[in-house]
Amino acid sequence: MSERNIRITQASGQAVEDERVEVVERKGIGHPDSICDGLAEAVSQALAGAYLDRVGKVLHYNTDETQLVAGTSAPAFGGGEVIEPIYLLLVGRATKEYQGTRIPTDTIALEAAREYLDETFPHLDVGSDVIVDVRLGEGSGDLQEVFGEDGAVPMANDTSYGVGHAPLTETEQIVLNTERRLNGEYTDENPEIGQDIKVMGKREGDEIDVTVAAATVDAHVNDIHEYRDAVEGVREFVADLATEYTDRDVRVQVNTADDYEEGAIYLTTTGTSAEQGDDGSVGRGNRANGLITPNRPMSMEATSGKNPVNHIGKIYNLLSTEIAESVVAEVDGIRQLQVRLLSQIGSPIDDPHVADATIITADGVAISDVEDEVEAIIDEELADITGVTERVIDGDLSTF
Amino acid sequence: MSERNIRITQASGQAVEDERVEVVERKGIGHPDSICDGLAEAVSQALAGAYLDRVGKVLHYNTDETQLVAGTSAPAFGGGEVIEPIYLLLVGRATKEYQGTRIPTDTIALEAAREYLDETFPHLDVGSDVIVDVRLGEGSGDLQEVFGEDGAVPMANDTSYGVGHAPLTETEQIVLNTERRLNGEYTDENPEIGQDIKVMGKREGDEIDVTVAAATVDAHVNDIHEYRDAVEGVREFVADLATEYTDRDVRVQVNTADDYEEGAIYLTTTGTSAEQGDDGSVGRGNRANGLITPNRPMSMEATSGKNPVNHIGKIYNLLSTEIAESVVAEVDGIRQLQVRLLSQIGSPIDDPHVADATIITADGVAISDVEDEVEAIIDEELADITGVTERVIDGDLSTF
Amino acid sequence: MSERNIRITQASGQAVEDERVEVVERKGIGHPDSICDGLAEAVSQALAGAYLDRVGKVLHYNTDETQLVAGTSAPAFGGGEVIEPIYLLLVGRATKEYQGTRIPTDTIALEAAREYLDETFPHLDVGSDVIVDVRLGEGSGDLQEVFGEDGAVPMANDTSYGVGHAPLTETEQIVLNTERRLNGEYTDENPEIGQDIKVMGKREGDEIDVTVAAATVDAHVNDIHEYRDAVEGVREFVADLATEYTDRDVRVQVNTADDYEEGAIYLTTTGTSAEQGDDGSVGRGNRANGLITPNRPMSMEATSGKNPVNHIGKIYNLLSTEIAESVVAEVDGIRQLQVRLLSQIGSPIDDPHVADATIITADGVAISDVEDEVEAIIDEELADITGVTERVIDGDLSTF
Amino acid sequence: MSERNIRITQASGQAVEDERVEVVERKGIGHPDSICDGLAEAVSQALAGAYLDRVGKVLHYNTDETQLVAGTSAPAFGGGEVIEPIYLLLVGRATKEYQGTRIPTDTIALEAAREYLDETFPHLDVGSDVIVDVRLGEGSGDLQEVFGEDGAVPMANDTSYGVGHAPLTETEQIVLNTERRLNGEYTDENPEIGQDIKVMGKREGDEIDVTVAAATVDAHVNDIHEYRDAVEGVREFVADLATEYTDRDVRVQVNTADDYEEGAIYLTTTGTSAEQGDDGSVGRGNRANGLITPNRPMSMEATSGKNPVNHIGKIYNLLSTEIAESVVAEVDGIRQLQVRLLSQIGSPIDDPHVADATIITADGVAISDVEDEVEAIIDEELADITGVTERVIDGDLSTF
Repeated sequence: MSERNIRITQASGQAVEDERVEVVERKGIGHPDSICDGLAEAVSQALAGAYLDRVGKVLHYNTDETQLVAGTSAPAFGGGEVIEPIYLLLVGRATKEYQGTRIPTDTIALEAAREYLDETFPHLDVGSDVIVDVRLGEGSGDLQEVFGEDGAVPMANDTSYGVGHAPLTETEQIVLNTERRLNGEYTDENPEIGQDIKVMGKREGDEIDVTVAAATVDAHVNDIHEYRDAVEGVREFVADLATEYTDRDVRVQVNTADDYEEGAIYLTTTGTSAEQGDDGSVGRGNRANGLITPNRPMSMEATSGKNPVNHIGKIYNLLSTEIAESVVAEVDGIRQLQVRLLSQIGSPIDDPHVADATIITADGVAISDVEDEVEAIIDEELADITGVTERVIDGDLSTF
Repeated sequence: MSERNIRITQASGQAVEDERVEVVERKGIGHPDSICDGLAEAVSQALAGAYLDRVGKVLHYNTDETQLVAGTSAPAFGGGEVIEPIYLLLVGRATKEYQGTRIPTDTIALEAAREYLDETFPHLDVGSDVIVDVRLGEGSGDLQEVFGEDGAVPMANDTSYGVGHAPLTETEQIVLNTERRLNGEYTDENPEIGQDIKVMGKREGDEIDVTVAAATVDAHVNDIHEYRDAVEGVREFVADLATEYTDRDVRVQVNTADDYEEGAIYLTTTGTSAEQGDDGSVGRGNRANGLITPNRPMSMEATSGKNPVNHIGKIYNLLSTEIAESVVAEVDGIRQLQVRLLSQIGSPIDDPHVADATIITADGVAISDVEDEVEAIIDEELADITGVTERVIDGDLSTF
Repeated sequence: MSERNIRITQASGQAVEDERVEVVERKGIGHPDSICDGLAEAVSQALAGAYLDRVGKVLHYNTDETQLVAGTSAPAFGGGEVIEPIYLLLVGRATKEYQGTRIPTDTIALEAAREYLDETFPHLDVGSDVIVDVRLGEGSGDLQEVFGEDGAVPMANDTSYGVGHAPLTETEQIVLNTERRLNGEYTDENPEIGQDIKVMGKREGDEIDVTVAAATVDAHVNDIHEYRDAVEGVREFVADLATEYTDRDVRVQVNTADDYEEGAIYLTTTGTSAEQGDDGSVGRGNRANGLITPNRPMSMEATSGKNPVNHIGKIYNLLSTEIAESVVAEVDGIRQLQVRLLSQIGSPIDDPHVADATIITADGVAISDVEDEVEAIIDEELADITGVTERVIDGDLSTF
Repeated sequence: MSERNIRITQASGQAVEDERVEVVERKGIGHPDSICDGLAEAVSQALAGAYLDRVGKVLHYNTDETQLVAGTSAPAFGGGEVIEPIYLLLVGRATKEYQGTRIPTDTIALEAAREYLDETFPHLDVGSDVIVDVRLGEGSGDLQEVFGEDGAVPMANDTSYGVGHAPLTETEQIVLNTERRLNGEYTDENPEIGQDIKVMGKREGDEIDVTVAAATVDAHVNDIHEYRDAVEGVREFVADLATEYTDRDVRVQVNTADDYEEGAIYLTTTGTSAEQGDDGSVGRGNRANGLITPNRPMSMEATSGKNPVNHIGKIYNLLSTEIAESVVAEVDGIRQLQVRLLSQIGSPIDDPHVADATIITADGVAISDVEDEVEAIIDEELADITGVTERVIDGDLSTF
C-alpha cells in the first residue's frame, strides 16, 4: 500500500451524466480569453526552454497575466480590414539574471508570442493587426531562490489544490471535440471559418442543444449566400460529429445571434472577435481540461502561463486530470471519477496532504472491487509527478 | 403557481458541511486580483452613474478587464519605499457618444479608479506608487443598441447561468468574516496591518485550519518585535472571531511563509503585495459571494466590472446568491440550498430558461414541506430582478 | 591673460536689431512642447537632488525625452470637460543602483512630474485629465561610471557646443516678456487666461507685429462677450507692456485664428491645447534663453532634462548665455555679442577647445576698447562653471 | 517682375566657408533621433497615400512625434542579443473618418513603421527587438476641415518660416556624404558596420577634423582584431572620400570613445545605439537639408512627419532649400546664398509674406548681375510649390 495519503471513497450524489440539466462550455483557441491563455502558455514554454538551455534549470517565473484589449475592425464581404489594432500586454514575473547570466526574458516572450500568433491565426497580421507589448517584472526576492536545484521533487510553497474528472460526459465530449475538430480538420479545408469558435452544450434529460458561435473570415466569404453556406456547413459538420459521441437527440445551432435582415452576421477580418470589441485575459475561460463545467467542482486557478516546475496549482490541476483519465482508461466499472489533490506546504509535491478519489461505480461494481487498482494508479502517477512538468515544457499537455 | 420555469429538487449528495474535507479561500480587498475586481466594479458604477446622469439610461459598457502589473519595493522597518510603481491598465468597452452627447468615459474611469484607490488603500500614494492607465474601446456595433429603453426588462442576449448557495458553512463564514473584519474594525485600530489579506480555510472532519497571510505596513512596524506582535495580534483576533461561527476546533496560523532567521517576513510599504511581484487581474479571485469554494459549483464568470443592466452572467450570479440567502433566511428546515439560473436567449431576463433550486433538507423535513415557499420566494425575486441592477449601481451589492 | 583659449573678434555682419526682417517666437509654459521641457527639467532636478541626498553625488541620468500625446476635450462656456486624457510618457536613462543603494528613480520621476503639473497648471486635474507614465531605462554600461567623484571639474565626453547672445533685441524682449508676464502677474489676476500662450514677434524695419495665441479657460468664460473681453484684455496688456521695451510701432493681435461666426474660438478646459490635438515633446521649442530666434545661430541641443553635471551641451548653452548677459551688463559699448563654447573631448569642461566671442561694438567703440574686459569676464565665468550645475539643480536657471 | 514679394540683398557678413571655425554634424539614419524622423516621415507618406487612394485627397494629419525608448542589449563578438526591446511610440493626429469612410490610420501607421524598419535596419528583428506602439488621436475640430479641396493652393494657417542654404561648404559636403555613403555603398559591402553613424565635422581655418562614431554589428565581428579592422576600414573610406570634396587637410577619427584596454568598444547587436541606452525623438536631429549647422540660421521646425499639403513650416523648409540649390546650380557667381520664406496667415502658400534671398557674390560679381535670374528662379519655384508636396508624398524628398 502507498505511503501517500490516498483516499478512495464512494461519491454521495449522482453522476453528472444522470443529472437532469447539464451545461458545458468551451471557448475556442481564437476566443480572446483563450488567445491570452495560449500566449501565456507559449511564453511560459519558451522561458522554461530558455532557462534550461542557458543555465540548466528552470528559474522562477510566472507569465499568467496576458491582457488583450480588443481592436476595431471593418469586416466586409471579400475582405475588410482592421481599423484599430488589438493591443496585447504580456505580463508576469521572470528571473532576468542568474549567477551573472542575463536572460533576455522580454525578447524571448515577444518572440514566443509572435510565433504563437503566426502559427495559430492565419488571418491575423502580427505587427499591424496586433501590437504586442510586454511588462515582465522580477519576482519578490525570496521567490527568486532556485528550486529543484538537484533534480529533487520541489516542495509545495502554497496550500493549493487541483481537481480532475473522468470520463467526460457525452455533452462534454461533444463540446470539446466540436471546437477541436472545427479548429483543425474543418478549418484546414474551410478557410472561411475563423479560430474564434465558442461552443455551448446544454443537456436537459436526453436532449442536447449544441450552440456554436463561429467567426467567419471575410476574405473567404463573398456574399450573404456564401455566409449562409458557411454557417450551414458548420452545422452539418457538428451535427454529424455529435453522433459519434452520443445516441441522444442533438440539436445544433450556429451563430444564433445573426439577424440577416439587419445585416448583423458574425463576419470578421481576422477570424477572432478580438478584432472588434471583445477583450480577454488569462484564466477566465476553459479549465485545464479544456472545458467550463459548472456541474462539476472546478479550480479557479489560471493554469496557463504558470511555472510548471513549482506552481502547485498548475501541476495539481493537470495531474489530477491525468490521473482521472488514466484510472478510467485502465480500470473497468467506473462511471464517474473525481480526483482532488491538496498540497501540504513544506512537503514534496509528490506527497500531497491528501489525494482524494471520489467514485461512482457502474451498476454491480463495488468500491472495494476497484479501490486497489485506483490507488495504485494514483500512487504511480504521483511518483512520476515531474513528468507533468516535462510534458508541459515540451508543449505536450494542453492547459486550456 | 409561478409561470416561470422553477424547479425544486432534493439534492442527491451530502451537504458540504458534512463532507470530510472542505477547502475555502478568500482573497482580501488588497490582493492584486481583488484590487482589479474592486477597480473594475468602481469604474462600472461610475460609468453607470454617469450614463444615467447624462442620457437618462445606462448605455453599453463592460469594464471587467483591469490588469495590474506589480511594482518593486524596498520595505524597511519604520518605512520603506516603492522603487518601481505598480502599473494598472483599466480595460473594457464603453459607449462614448450617444445621440450627439459625448461621454468622457476615460476620464470618468480614471477618476473612479483614483478615488477607489485613495479610499481603500491608505498607504498607497496614487500617482507615484501607482500609474493608472486606461484603454476603453467602443463595443461592436450591434452591441451599441440601447437596452431597457423603456424601463422594460432586458432580453437575455447570451446563454449564461448563475449559481448561488446558502447558508455558508462554518468554514466559509470564518474565512469570509476573517478578512472582512480584519479589513475594517481591526485595521482601523491597527494600521500596521495592510489591506492584502488572504485567508485559506481547510476543514478535515471537525478540525478547521485557518491560514492567514496578512501584509504588514512598514511605516507602522519598527522592528522584528513589533512585527511578531503584529502577527500575533492578528492570530488572536482571528482565533477569537472563529469561535463566533463554530464550535469545532480551529487552528489559526498567520504568515506561515515567514522565516525569521532568513529575515523573510511579510513586510510591505503599501499594504499590498502588488508593490512587489504579484500581478493581478479581474475575475481570477473570489466569486460573487466573496469566496472561492471548490467544494461547490462555481461560475467562471467575472462578475466585477460587468454591465449590471444587461450582463446576464453578472445579474444571475448575484441574484442566485440573493435568492439562496433569502430562502434560507425565510424558510425553516433547509440545511443546504443551491440556486441555479440559466438564461434563455431572446427571453426577458426575469424569465429564465430554468430556475433550479437543489435542496438538502434538515432531518425530518421533506422537500414537499418547503417547496411552495421556496418557489414563491424565487418567483418574487425574479420579478424584482431589476432591483439587482439598481443595488449594483448604487454600490450596495458586493461583487467579490 | 587667461590660459584658456578665448578669442574675441569683431562680427562681420549686421546686428540683428538692424536687419530688415526679424522673427522671434516663444512657446509659453503651457504649450505642449514646453510642458514636456518643464517636466523633463523638473524630473531632472528631482533626480539630481535625490542622488545628492542618497549617495552624495549626482549619478548618470538624462531625462530629456518626455512625450506628450494630446487628449480630447469638450470645452464649453462656464466649464467643459476633458473627454480623453492627455498621455505623458516620461522617458530617459537613470542609474537605479549604486554601490548597493537602490534609487527609486521611477517614483521620484512620477512625483516630480505630478508636483510640477499641479503647481504649473491650476486648471488641470492630474490623474484624470492626464495620465503620467514612465519608462526610464539604465544607460549603457560605460556611461554608468561616476563623474565628478572628487569635486573635480568633469571631463567633456563629447564634442559639443553652446551658443549665447546678448543683449536681446527689442522684439526679443517683447516676445519673452509678453509670455512671462502674461503667465504670472496677468493670469494671477485673470484666471480666464490659461498657460498655453504662444507669442510670435515679427519686425520689419521699425514695425513690430506681436501675435499672441492665448488659451482661455472655459470655467472662467461664461459667454462670447466674456471671451471677447478676455482677448481684448490680453491685447491691451501686451500693447502696454511693449512700450516698455521699444519706441517702435507695435501692433498686437490676439487669437487671430478665431472665427466668431463659425464659433471657432480658443476656448479650453485646462488652459492648454494639449487637451485637444496638440502633441509635444522635449527640445522642440524654446532654446535655453527662452526664445526661438531664426535670425541668430541656435543650438539644436535639448537643454531641458539633461544631466547638469556632465552634459556638455546643456552646460555650454546655459553658460554661454550667462556669459553674454554678464558681459553686456558689465561692459559698455557693446551693441551685440555672441558667445560660443566648443568642447574638447577629454579636457575639463572649464577649458573649452575654444571660447569664441563675436562682437558688434557701438558707434565709436573699437574691439580693442573692450576685449580685455570681455576676456576677463569669460575667463571668470568659465572658472566658475560648476556654479551653473548648482543653479540648475536648485532650479534657479531656466532651460526653456 | 514677379508679383510675389521677393527681396534679393547682399549679405552683410562673411561666407561660412570663410569663417575661422565651422562646426557641422549629421546624425545617421540609425541614430535614435533619426530613426524617429524616418518613422515619422514613413508613416506620413503612408497616410498621405492612403488618403489619396481612399478619399481622393490628403486629409488632416501630423505624425511628427515618434518617441523611442532605448532597449538593453548584450552585444558579443560573433553575435549577441537584445535583452530588453526598444519601445517605439508613434504619436500624432490623423483624421479617422471622412464622409462615412473610415481610415485605418493606426494599422497603416504600424505597417509603414514595420516596413521602414525592416528595410532600413537589416540587423533589427522587428517584433522582438522592437515593440511598435501607436497613439494617433484626432485633431481639433477646426483643423479637420479639408484643405486643397479643389486642387487650389492651400492657405497658410500659421505664421511660419523656412530657411535654406546653398552651396554646402566643403565641411558640410564631407559630413553629409560621409554618412550617406557609409550607409549605402560601404555597408552594402561591409555588413560589420551598422546604421547608427554619427559624423561631426569641425573646421578651423584650413584644417578639417571629421569624427565618425560608427556602430559595428557583432554578428559580423568575431574578435577585437576584426573590430580594429572594421574601424580602420571606415577611417580609410572616409579619408578617401573627403578628398573628393576638399583640398584642405582632413583628419579622420573613428570611434574615439573606444578604450581597448577597458574593453569599451562600439559593438552592437542591431547596428544602432537605440538597443542600449540612447533614446530618441523626432525633430531633435538633422534639419531638412540633412545637417545640423550651428554656423547658419536654422529652423526649429521638425520637418519629418508633418503634413506635406498644408504644414507651412515643412513646405517652406524644404522649398527654401530647393530654391537655394536651384539658384546656385543655375546662376554663376554666387558664393553663398540663403533663402528664407516667411508665411502670411490667410494668403496662399505660394505667395509668402516675403521671400528673402541673401547673397554673398563671388569676387567681381555684383548683386545686380544676378538678382533678376535669382528672382525668376524663386518665382518659378514658388509657383510650383505643390510640386514639393507631391515629391514628399512620393518619398523623393528627404526630410532629415
